[in-house]
Amino acid sequence: MTNDGLLIVFSGPSGAGKDTVLQKLLESDPNLRLSVSATTRMPRPGEIDGTHYHFLSEASFQELITKDQVLEYAQYCGNFYGTPLAPIQKWNEMGNDVILEIEIQGGAQVMRKRPDCVGIFILPPSLEVLEHRLRKRGTESEEAIQKRLAAAKDEIQKAADYDYVVINDDLADAVQAVAEIIHAEKRKTTRNQDLIERMISPC
Amino acid sequence: MTNDGLLIVFSGPSGAGKDTVLQKLLESDPNLRLSVSATTRMPRPGEIDGTHYHFLSEASFQELITKDQVLEYAQYCGNFYGTPLAPIQKWNEMGNDVILEIEIQGGAQVMRKRPDCVGIFILPPSLEVLEHRLRKRGTESEEAIQKRLAAAKDEIQKAADYDYVVINDDLADAVQAVAEIIHAEKRKTTRNQDLIERMISPC
Repeated sequence: MTNDGLLIVFSGPSGAGKDTVLQKLLESDPNLRLSVSATTRMPRPGEIDGTHYHFLSEASFQELITKDQVLEYAQYCGNFYGTPLAPIQKWNEMGNDVILEIEIQGGAQVMRKRPDCVGIFILPPSLEVLEHRLRKRGTESEEAIQKRLAAAKDEIQKAADYDYVVINDDLADAVQAVAEIIHAEKRKTTRNQDLIERMISPC
Repeated sequence: MTNDGLLIVFSGPSGAGKDTVLQKLLESDPNLRLSVSATTRMPRPGEIDGTHYHFLSEASFQELITKDQVLEYAQYCGNFYGTPLAPIQKWNEMGNDVILEIEIQGGAQVMRKRPDCVGIFILPPSLEVLEHRLRKRGTESEEAIQKRLAAAKDEIQKAADYDYVVINDDLADAVQAVAEIIHAEKRKTTRNQDLIERMISPC
């Protein structure tokens, strides 16, 4: 199968458990790298440049945009946030798969720009379970929870734009499902044209 | 993920090890069923109706064709060979995945007729290994081996029409690869539209 690295777009509503699935996946798959976003906002205490974000000046961020070196970007509260292309390209060329945890709008931008990417959407078992998980956190007001639930409904509708849906009911099952998707994608004929041609061409 | 059964089209050149992969797969996956071809030729000694083939009269076979109840068919040496649709539909409705081991021309017919099927092409690690495997059988003349190798080259070119390619180098790896493809396919968004809609629709 192909040795080229995949670009994986990973989304899902708040409470679906994206972070936990992703963390387990990174622990179990040494070939997988996590894309780190760039931002022009100031680092908060404890945030490390290159780990939590690539902290850039607005001029540097604008330069990335001009040079088409961001896969997607958006502006929130006067700051830029986006996905730098260079580290993804570098990892992919080295054969590493890169996973990009991203909200729906950003995911849509990436999937338009990189039709070869693999879109995976993490779903909760049901909206009831999602609500239960959000309440269990105990950190948010009733209003905030209701807002998140309404947003989740809108987001889940966008799952149809992704290639795969994985229900995060049992964590180990969800992690295995994502791993299987990655393995299967590497065996897609469209990613292995070279291999087929090399096999039948005279040396 | 979806509970609907998949239809899997399974092809590859002689010597790639399709039969062995398939046998191991059937042993390890209790949800998988093997499609049995129909033919109008007479059973050979030891062949069991419904196991090796569904042995049909020419009138019965013609009736299946007329009623569009064969997924594909062809005529060799005056006999009909084909894939009856009814058992596949029955198994798929019960949630069983059905695998169809078939040569390239038949596979192409099935993939045209059932665009929702999953096409998997088994490849040898190289043409040299394929040649070695064919010779090791020790059952065929040099001429027959050369014919098979030439046919294999033509067939491998058709791998591009399938969804996935699996290299059968290590048997256990190849079996696992096919299993992962089956699992991943069941998580395709296109096969889970109902699930997504049910999740966000009011009860």
